[in-house]
Amino acid sequence: MRQIRTDLAMEQTGARDLPGVTISSWEAGDIVITEVRIDTGEGAKLLNKAPGVYVTLECAPLRKQGPELRIAMASLLGEELLRLMPPEDDRPVLVIGLGNRSVTPDSLGPKTVERTLVTRHIFRELPDSVDDRMSPVCAVAPGVLGVTGIETLEVAHGIVREVNPRVVIVIDALTARASSRVGSTVQLTDTGIQPGSGVGNHRSALTDETLGVKVLALGVPTVIYAATIARDALSMLSEDDGTREEELDHLCEKLFEGALGEMIVTPREIDDLVGDVAQILASGINQALHPGLSEKEILTMMS
Amino acid sequence: MRQIRTDLAMEQTGARDLPGVTISSWEAGDIVITEVRIDTGEGAKLLNKAPGVYVTLECAPLRKQGPELRIAMASLLGEELLRLMPPEDDRPVLVIGLGNRSVTPDSLGPKTVERTLVTRHIFRELPDSVDDRMSPVCAVAPGVLGVTGIETLEVAHGIVREVNPRVVIVIDALTARASSRVGSTVQLTDTGIQPGSGVGNHRSALTDETLGVKVLALGVPTVIYAATIARDALSMLSEDDGTREEELDHLCEKLFEGALGEMIVTPREIDDLVGDVAQILASGINQALHPGLSEKEILTMMS
Amino acid sequence: MRQIRTDLAMEQTGARDLPGVTISSWEAGDIVITEVRIDTGEGAKLLNKAPGVYVTLECAPLRKQGPELRIAMASLLGEELLRLMPPEDDRPVLVIGLGNRSVTPDSLGPKTVERTLVTRHIFRELPDSVDDRMSPVCAVAPGVLGVTGIETLEVAHGIVREVNPRVVIVIDALTARASSRVGSTVQLTDTGIQPGSGVGNHRSALTDETLGVKVLALGVPTVIYAATIARDALSMLSEDDGTREEELDHLCEKLFEGALGEMIVTPREIDDLVGDVAQILASGINQALHPGLSEKEILTMMS
Amino acid sequence: MRQIRTDLAMEQTGARDLPGVTISSWEAGDIVITEVRIDTGEGAKLLNKAPGVYVTLECAPLRKQGPELRIAMASLLGEELLRLMPPEDDRPVLVIGLGNRSVTPDSLGPKTVERTLVTRHIFRELPDSVDDRMSPVCAVAPGVLGVTGIETLEVAHGIVREVNPRVVIVIDALTARASSRVGSTVQLTDTGIQPGSGVGNHRSALTDETLGVKVLALGVPTVIYAATIARDALSMLSEDDGTREEELDHLCEKLFEGALGEMIVTPREIDDLVGDVAQILASGINQALHPGLSEKEILTMMS
Repeated sequence: MRQIRTDLAMEQTGARDLPGVTISSWEAGDIVITEVRIDTGEGAKLLNKAPGVYVTLECAPLRKQGPELRIAMASLLGEELLRLMPPEDDRPVLVIGLGNRSVTPDSLGPKTVERTLVTRHIFRELPDSVDDRMSPVCAVAPGVLGVTGIETLEVAHGIVREVNPRVVIVIDALTARASSRVGSTVQLTDTGIQPGSGVGNHRSALTDETLGVKVLALGVPTVIYAATIARDALSMLSEDDGTREEELDHLCEKLFEGALGEMIVTPREIDDLVGDVAQILASGINQALHPGLSEKEILTMMS
Repeated sequence: MRQIRTDLAMEQTGARDLPGVTISSWEAGDIVITEVRIDTGEGAKLLNKAPGVYVTLECAPLRKQGPELRIAMASLLGEELLRLMPPEDDRPVLVIGLGNRSVTPDSLGPKTVERTLVTRHIFRELPDSVDDRMSPVCAVAPGVLGVTGIETLEVAHGIVREVNPRVVIVIDALTARASSRVGSTVQLTDTGIQPGSGVGNHRSALTDETLGVKVLALGVPTVIYAATIARDALSMLSEDDGTREEELDHLCEKLFEGALGEMIVTPREIDDLVGDVAQILASGINQALHPGLSEKEILTMMS
Repeated sequence: MRQIRTDLAMEQTGARDLPGVTISSWEAGDIVITEVRIDTGEGAKLLNKAPGVYVTLECAPLRKQGPELRIAMASLLGEELLRLMPPEDDRPVLVIGLGNRSVTPDSLGPKTVERTLVTRHIFRELPDSVDDRMSPVCAVAPGVLGVTGIETLEVAHGIVREVNPRVVIVIDALTARASSRVGSTVQLTDTGIQPGSGVGNHRSALTDETLGVKVLALGVPTVIYAATIARDALSMLSEDDGTREEELDHLCEKLFEGALGEMIVTPREIDDLVGDVAQILASGINQALHPGLSEKEILTMMS
Repeated sequence: MRQIRTDLAMEQTGARDLPGVTISSWEAGDIVITEVRIDTGEGAKLLNKAPGVYVTLECAPLRKQGPELRIAMASLLGEELLRLMPPEDDRPVLVIGLGNRSVTPDSLGPKTVERTLVTRHIFRELPDSVDDRMSPVCAVAPGVLGVTGIETLEVAHGIVREVNPRVVIVIDALTARASSRVGSTVQLTDTGIQPGSGVGNHRSALTDETLGVKVLALGVPTVIYAATIARDALSMLSEDDGTREEELDHLCEKLFEGALGEMIVTPREIDDLVGDVAQILASGINQALHPGLSEKEILTMMS
């Protein structure tokens, strides 16, 4: 299945029992939470993902739901994020929004950063105006290599050295296999960002090892690769008539030789969708990092 | 081939000899011009397009070319547009940009309108400051039904009654079958806009009949439907093993039952691409409508 | 006071008793409502405004307040709007957003239209899916003369003929005299739009007479003219030393001969401010036109 | 003259002979070049600017000119920039765009960065595809303190440590005193960015000392402070009647107690103006850093 690409660990598992992989799943209202835990190198190889925890929150398509589902997603995301966070100390949290803000489906990271409540400068300059319910937060969108000429890892590394955070939360637009998950599934992992992942195909890892600090990654699929869809169509056919995998791969390669290979599949309303999802992610982050503030207080501080 | 959808007449023709259809093709530098002329109802039925002339300008992918190709495309488009225009008189030309400016691949029309040199108000208010090399032009982007609650035809009809144009030029984002044509092929037709066409799936016709004035339509594909790609993948396979058409259609329907059916396939860099293509279309229109003005004079008047 | 320019009737009144003008004022929570009623031609001349009712809602600067004040403003605006609306019948309401969407302080109208719930097409196509709590609404942003070559009045007139509304609500960005009112004061009037008003300096009237239907206008100041500020500075000085009015006007003319005359004064955060104000106006309109729908239902229908 | 604020050294000089300050001026076509050289601490104190060279390119209002003037400005800027640049070596040039991309008049830096040709990654990864006519360039827009919670200096410092540039070029939106200079005057200096300068009021210096590498700064005024205009109006009056400076300052303070103090004065068409100016700055930078490439080659590489 070489032509199929997804950044969601849960889409790799299938209905199989995998050695070195623990999967659990539960529901909270209309949201299904799945936790995939990769414990061994064998499990990592089977799923083609780094060892660690991958928590997925899945809901029905956001665009067709009311505001309650979004509020519930943000609230649940805040809780799951808190569960993976290291204990609080005086150091700030650094939020990094990956991706290219001029490429709509890749702009989720920068747009989430814009909606994140930053407070590190207030803690430093007006310490009397903050209280226990808040923690110091800073946030950047470092841009992408083709636009800056600098690897994301280089920018992140430089900033980590300056601000000395206790944890880095990286936001990224992901790819999925199933169209139903685009814009409606949040993945949270303690493995950071791996090379080749994301809509922007990051080339360097942003992990505990490369940044020297705990790295959590948060993402939502915004695209499917055109090749994935064609390959799924071919696979469906082959189930019926027994065409061999290699033959399908060969056909798929032929199909994607030209411009099609660089094309992406997105919902038609991707511009609005990315804005809505960025709001949910930022809201979840704000709740996790300033657990004592009400949504109203956060809104007031951001306006 | 029911699942395949394209707004390009030339993609419907294939390598067949079709009754009631005349196809001719020639080259101008790196650009291939194809003219499909549908002369009879039989031809219209075969191609599923209204009778009339469809001129297509095709070039290599714009994003990988230098500025000369864009200049050449604009210039050739200006010439072809002039060829289809009714004779000049005192009445203005009305340019209408269809589509939703907040949906990137559907925003080609509004973005072209923004770059079109409008002069009708100068002809009316400062007649001494215009000269023979210019003609009166006005331009609107009426928005889409879901955003305005008004059919595009209603807005267009209302404005046509007010400004009494000698010709309407409608700009629209199209769908294609071949990914290589996205962003690099311009179609010009004297048949106007037909129901169901375009990325936005217009529901009413904008034609000589509905608007009571000559209507030309100008468009560039910005998306392929996800279903088209899957169907093409299936077709390729079936050429090898003889699967029947109905079976493929059935498989395709199964594949597109859910969210996938509403998804579109675009180049990753669609935001920039739409801007570039809008500039080419507007430049072609400006050259056709103000044939005596240099590109530099047009730029100066627009800044 | 020739160099002073404001679109707010209440800023013209001063602390004077004016013949033909009735002024009343009351409070609702943190919001001050002022009603200026111009009953005679004499009053109209004194205030340089058309006869009719001007209702102003004033609050503290929005950017420094929490979400409750915005909710209260929208709710109060909805009530005041209802008070001026003609009785309901089967015809739709037409909302027209004036101004240039590419000029931030002039983009209030188009941005309000984007956030208005339109329903006319649902009433026509899916009558079973609407209910008593809703009314048919359509909305357009016709663009400005310099961009379209068509007078706003021409576009509005053409659309009014097509959709036959029972009332037109026109939204526009205004100019003020006092900086404290920029972004924080809403004016609602039954006199429509007068020539020369608004940030965009509309040249034709949009009124009951020109459109043949009841016209309400809704606006918020987003700019002050640079000349107004300089003139106020000069006036302040002249109060101290008795410089004559004509002398001040002469000085002001000298000061504004060059580029300064075309400059506007806005809050630094005008981009965000216009978005926030558009949301309040749209929310007020939505509540007035669909009085039975909850804010949550409206949000769900718009996503 | 305490209420007057400008970032242009040339606006500080007046028609005076100042000790420790050398001023020279010459013309190149329609462009006036002025060089202010502050040689001593005394001169620095007199002009309230750091010692160093300030080169200003002034032209007529861009918005009313044709494309040639823009081409001439970019070309001259490239030459002046080269004159101040340290000798070339293997290290890259780092371009830093200051300011808030969501605040139009403050977005000049980020917008210039978007239009700058970056090549550092190509030099590193595809060294065979670059040639002598190019040099390695990287570029970032670090965001502003209120949005990121991180001082611009901290981000800049972190990135400088990672990429080890031979020179940093900082781009910033400036304030002016004379409205005729808004959008039409470029200032280039070898003194870097001083605290309190720019539309965004940067609080830390970005200089040779703070970054440990040569820093050039490039800026264009996009706003005037409202207070400057009022103060100029008052001064004009006082020339006539001899009002004392202290009295004027007192009046000005009274005038600017409220919201007005935070307001800015910009041309109405600031959105377009910032885009045009960013294009000129980026074009000048591209010509200085890749002196062998034609404008056409640069455009092709950027698309």
